[in-house]
Amino acid sequence: MTSSPTRAQTWLDLPADTGFGLANLPYGVYSTPGTGPRTGVAIGDRVLDLAAATGDDVHATGTLNAFMARGPRSWTALRAQLTDWFTDPVHRGAIEPHLVPRGQVTMHLPIEVADYVDFYSSQHHAENLGRMFRPDSAALTPNWKHLPIGYHGRAGTVQVSGTSVVRPCGQRKAPTDDAPTFGPSQRLDIEAEVGFVVGVGSDLGTAVPVGRFTEHVFGVCLVNDWSARDLQSWEYVPLGPFLGKSFLTSVAPWVVPLAALEAARVTPPPRDVALLPYLDDSDQPWGLDIRMEIRLNGELISCPPFADMYWTPAQQLAHMTVNGASLRTGDLYASGTVSGPGEDQRGSFIELSWGGKEPLTLADGTTRTFLDDGDVVTITATAPGADGTRMAFGEVTGRIEPAR
Amino acid sequence: MTSSPTRAQTWLDLPADTGFGLANLPYGVYSTPGTGPRTGVAIGDRVLDLAAATGDDVHATGTLNAFMARGPRSWTALRAQLTDWFTDPVHRGAIEPHLVPRGQVTMHLPIEVADYVDFYSSQHHAENLGRMFRPDSAALTPNWKHLPIGYHGRAGTVQVSGTSVVRPCGQRKAPTDDAPTFGPSQRLDIEAEVGFVVGVGSDLGTAVPVGRFTEHVFGVCLVNDWSARDLQSWEYVPLGPFLGKSFLTSVAPWVVPLAALEAARVTPPPRDVALLPYLDDSDQPWGLDIRMEIRLNGELISCPPFADMYWTPAQQLAHMTVNGASLRTGDLYASGTVSGPGEDQRGSFIELSWGGKEPLTLADGTTRTFLDDGDVVTITATAPGADGTRMAFGEVTGRIEPAR
Repeated sequence: MTSSPTRAQTWLDLPADTGFGLANLPYGVYSTPGTGPRTGVAIGDRVLDLAAATGDDVHATGTLNAFMARGPRSWTALRAQLTDWFTDPVHRGAIEPHLVPRGQVTMHLPIEVADYVDFYSSQHHAENLGRMFRPDSAALTPNWKHLPIGYHGRAGTVQVSGTSVVRPCGQRKAPTDDAPTFGPSQRLDIEAEVGFVVGVGSDLGTAVPVGRFTEHVFGVCLVNDWSARDLQSWEYVPLGPFLGKSFLTSVAPWVVPLAALEAARVTPPPRDVALLPYLDDSDQPWGLDIRMEIRLNGELISCPPFADMYWTPAQQLAHMTVNGASLRTGDLYASGTVSGPGEDQRGSFIELSWGGKEPLTLADGTTRTFLDDGDVVTITATAPGADGTRMAFGEVTGRIEPAR
Repeated sequence: MTSSPTRAQTWLDLPADTGFGLANLPYGVYSTPGTGPRTGVAIGDRVLDLAAATGDDVHATGTLNAFMARGPRSWTALRAQLTDWFTDPVHRGAIEPHLVPRGQVTMHLPIEVADYVDFYSSQHHAENLGRMFRPDSAALTPNWKHLPIGYHGRAGTVQVSGTSVVRPCGQRKAPTDDAPTFGPSQRLDIEAEVGFVVGVGSDLGTAVPVGRFTEHVFGVCLVNDWSARDLQSWEYVPLGPFLGKSFLTSVAPWVVPLAALEAARVTPPPRDVALLPYLDDSDQPWGLDIRMEIRLNGELISCPPFADMYWTPAQQLAHMTVNGASLRTGDLYASGTVSGPGEDQRGSFIELSWGGKEPLTLADGTTRTFLDDGDVVTITATAPGADGTRMAFGEVTGRIEPAR
C-alpha cells in the first residue's frame, strides 16, 4: 500500500474514477430482456456475461453459489483470467461482444442465502444502543469484548437492493403504556452493514480456525438490515430480535471478491481485553478500510468507517463455528451496524436522532427521527484497490412503502 | 373423539398397537442399499415407496419440499389415495411390491430446511428458566403473554435423528469467574420440542392470518434442540441464543400430516391476558394432545404434555408473519421446550435437575445433572388418531460424542 501503484493498462474505455476498475471485478447476477439471470462481472459501466465469455454453465445458474462452492483456486484462476482478458488487447475481439451496458441490465439477488447471521461488532454502535436501551447498566454487556455477539436472522427475507420496504406492522408498547397496541412501526430504521459471503462450507462438528478465513469466504457486499425499533424493543428480551428485523434485509447486487480487498486491510482497533486464542488474529488482521456513505433522499447524512469495527470478519467466522456449527455455501454474515465515534458516522437513525430525541434537520428544512413513507435510503462505499484507485461496492437502496 | 370410532379394514397385516396405522400415514425420506433417497410413507413396520407406487417423480427428489409446495389439495388427494390403496384389497397386487421393511431402510432429513425458528411457548418452561436465569425478576418477561416469543436458529445444522452430538466447545463464564474460559460445554442439554413444517410459502410484505394455518403448514415432526447452557448463559444478553444452540438441532425422520392430527386437537390453556386480534384463534384452536416421552439410555425420565402449551402453532405462524416476513417451502418452526407443571413433565435437563442443583438418580444408581459423553437421549410421542388408535411420531435420538 505504501509503494506507488501502477495501474494496469486496459483496452476498455473506463469512465474516469469508476469504482469498477481492474482492481475490483465484483460479481453479480443480472438479466436482460433477452437473457435469464446469469453471472456478470462489473467493469466500468458495463457487465461481462461470464457464461458466454467462459463457456462455463456454472455462470448461467442464476446465483453465484455453484461457482463459489468450487473454492479459492477456482476463484483465483477466474480472477487472473479476467485480468488477462481486460488487459491484453489480443482478447478484445473475443471478449467485447459479451459486454453489456450496465444501464440495460436488471440485477438480482446474487446468492442463494443459506443461513444469515448478523453480528454486533461496532463498539460505538453497541455503546450507543446500550446507553439508550439500558441506561441503568454499563453501555457494553460484560461479554461484549470477549466474543463477537451475533444472532441468526431470516435468510428468506434477504432481498436484492431496490426491493420495496413495506412498513411492517406489529406490537409496540412504550414503557408508559399499560398494554401493547398493534399497528405500523413508528420507528422504522436502517442498519448500515457490510456482509461476508461464504463460498466453501465446513463439516459439522469441526471449527474453522481464524487463519482459514480466506479458504471459506468468497466476498463482500453492502447490507441494510432494516429494523423496526418499536417492535424490537418490546419483543427482544430474553431471546433477541425477531420481527423487528425479519421483514427485510437488503443487499447490494455486487459481491466484491475478498482478493480485491488485500489493499484495504488494516489493523483493527487495539483490544483492551485479552482474547481467547481461537479469536487471536493479530498475525493476520482482517480489519478493512471500507468507507461507507448513507444518503436519505439523495442527501448525505452519515459516513460510517468500517475500519473502526472492533471485531473482524475473520474473528466472526472463527467464533460462529467454534462450537462445531457447519458452514454452507451461501451463508451470509453481516458485521452489525457500522458506527464510528463521530455524530456524522452513525449507521442507524436511532443513533443519528439519539432515540428520536434529537431530530435530524435535512437540507429541505424538514426533520427526521425515523423513516417516513416515501423515503429512500441508499448506502454506498469505497475501499482502496491494489492499483491506487478507490473501488466501489455498488449500492444498497430501498424506498419505504406504506404499511399494508 | 367421543363417538366410537371404527377402524378401517386393511389388507395389510399391521402389528398390534402400531403407531403407524391408517390414521397416521407420515411421510419421510429413506434410502436402501439399492435406491437413492426417496419419499416413503410409513405403514405398520413397512415403508411405501411413493415414487414407485405413484409413478410421480416428485417423490424421488430426496426431500419432501417439491411435493409440499404443491399445496393442500395435493396433500389431501394423495392421502385419500393412500387410504384407498391400503383399504381396498383390489390394490394389493399393485401396491404390495412397493412396500419395504422399515428395518432395511436408512432414514434421511425429510425436508430441505429453509428458515428455522424456535419459539418459547411453554409457560412452565419459560417460568422455570426465568426463575433460574433471572431470579431477581418476575419469572415471565412482561411480553410473554402478549406474543409468542421466538428467534431464528441455524437451519444448516438441522439434522436427522441419529446424527452424533459432538459436544460443543465455547466460552463459559460462571458469575464468580473473572473472565471466560474456553473448553467443552459442561452443561450439555436437550430441548424436547414439536416442529411444524411449512409446505406453502407466502408473499413478502403480506401477513398470514391465524385462520390460514392449514393452507401453509404441511405437518409435524419431533425436534430436539440440543443446547449448551453454559455457552448460552454467557452469550445470550442482549441478542439471544447463538452458539449455545447452533451446533445441532435433531428432527425425527417422519413428518405426520396435519390432516392426521384433527382428532388430537384440543383447546389451549385459558388466556389470562387479552390477545390482540391477529392472535385470536379461539374459534379454531390448534392446541394438540401430543404426549411426549424422553428416555435417557433407555430409561423413561419425563413425559411432557404438548396440550399444555400456551401458544399454538397457528398463533406462532400468524405472529411470525404479521410483520410481512414471507414463508418458504421447508421453513421449520419449533414450539420451544415442552414442559408440563409436574416435575416429571419437564422437557430439559436444566429443569429436571433444577439448574444442576438437584441431580436425577437413574435406575442404575448413577446421577445426572447434564449429559455425559456416551449418553443417548431419545424422544418419542403419541397422539390420538381419528380411528381411536394412538399415532406415533417416530423418534428423535442422538448419542453424545466427546468434544473434538
